[in-house]
Amino acid sequence: MRPEQLELYLVTDRGLSLGRSILDVVCEAVRGGVTMVQLREKECSSREFLELAVALKERLSGTGVPLVINDRVDIALASGADGVHVGQSDLPCDIVRRLLGPDRIVGLSVESVEDAMKANDCDVDYIGVSPVFSTPTKTDTAPALGYEGLRAVAGLSRHPAVGIGGINAGNAAEIIRCGADGIAVVSAIMSAPDPYAAAAGLAASVRTAVEARK
Amino acid sequence: MRPEQLELYLVTDRGLSLGRSILDVVCEAVRGGVTMVQLREKECSSREFLELAVALKERLSGTGVPLVINDRVDIALASGADGVHVGQSDLPCDIVRRLLGPDRIVGLSVESVEDAMKANDCDVDYIGVSPVFSTPTKTDTAPALGYEGLRAVAGLSRHPAVGIGGINAGNAAEIIRCGADGIAVVSAIMSAPDPYAAAAGLAASVRTAVEARK
Repeated sequence: MRPEQLELYLVTDRGLSLGRSILDVVCEAVRGGVTMVQLREKECSSREFLELAVALKERLSGTGVPLVINDRVDIALASGADGVHVGQSDLPCDIVRRLLGPDRIVGLSVESVEDAMKANDCDVDYIGVSPVFSTPTKTDTAPALGYEGLRAVAGLSRHPAVGIGGINAGNAAEIIRCGADGIAVVSAIMSAPDPYAAAAGLAASVRTAVEARK
Repeated sequence: MRPEQLELYLVTDRGLSLGRSILDVVCEAVRGGVTMVQLREKECSSREFLELAVALKERLSGTGVPLVINDRVDIALASGADGVHVGQSDLPCDIVRRLLGPDRIVGLSVESVEDAMKANDCDVDYIGVSPVFSTPTKTDTAPALGYEGLRAVAGLSRHPAVGIGGINAGNAAEIIRCGADGIAVVSAIMSAPDPYAAAAGLAASVRTAVEARK
């Protein structure tokens, strides 16, 4: 995985797609500039999760955009996805690495400076710094880190970092200025009236901020 | 897996254990004669599921009683469990077999004669015939098969078969007389005031019925 693939990271949520097909929303968003996709399904059956992962992997074929599966290593292995993202209540990242092998992507959510320090001892490809701001998308999250918390985590992490939680076109550039390599969004794209345009706008903001940092 | 390991198959349900530790109930039941255990966790986090699987595998060490994980192939791989049990909405059994390799146990729930005929083309170690009777334990089940349906499925299956759904000390022997190799129970043991005694009684009924069939 190249760090620039973290620039605009879309995390799916079928409850926020305004009744549209997840596949269609994701594909529009990828056309607009999404650089990585995480399929996150907490309610559906394993069979349905797998079928969606296989279909999404197929649709992403040739785009260069990696597909990462939330939590379920078995779904990732069965679908041929590019990796797995785990949170602090999911399988430990050393076990995920062992099951996936050295070549696939392993991402880990960190919710504090302490988590980020522990993550420095783990063989992960990136960390998701969560939540930067409080958000209605996830209700089981840790306290919001804010720009200060994000800056502290990004400063001490040896891994590329992506901010997640309450990120939108209005604050995307500031997330990059805090030291993150990219932004992860859910509703800013999944719930956008035009996911293509929303992704294009976010991608441009992030790209400009990344370039300005060089 | 030997078919006699299906004789008394305990499926866990933390909601039915009367507040007692699943580990303790299972260990008492194994002491009473349970021959196989399926850890079924639908609500807890992946981390908690894994920790429980690891602890249970440890407690079953030396008993000869296999531990099978419901649905989650990744939890089975990570915990060193002996196999996986999947239903019709879980990962397809050919994928489960590929992920687990040839040596571990793969079990499949069948809910009709049609499912059982399809299962004859699958590389599984046993089928769970579900539900024989309607049960409050699972609310998302197919129509009850009854003794007739169980007899039909057991008669055409090339795999060992275990009946599940509403089975207790009063009907256990008849399940075996219908051609099943064993019984799978949830509440008959998980909710029993004395899981050791409940398991011992069920094991004796099944054993007597199996011997009578020879």
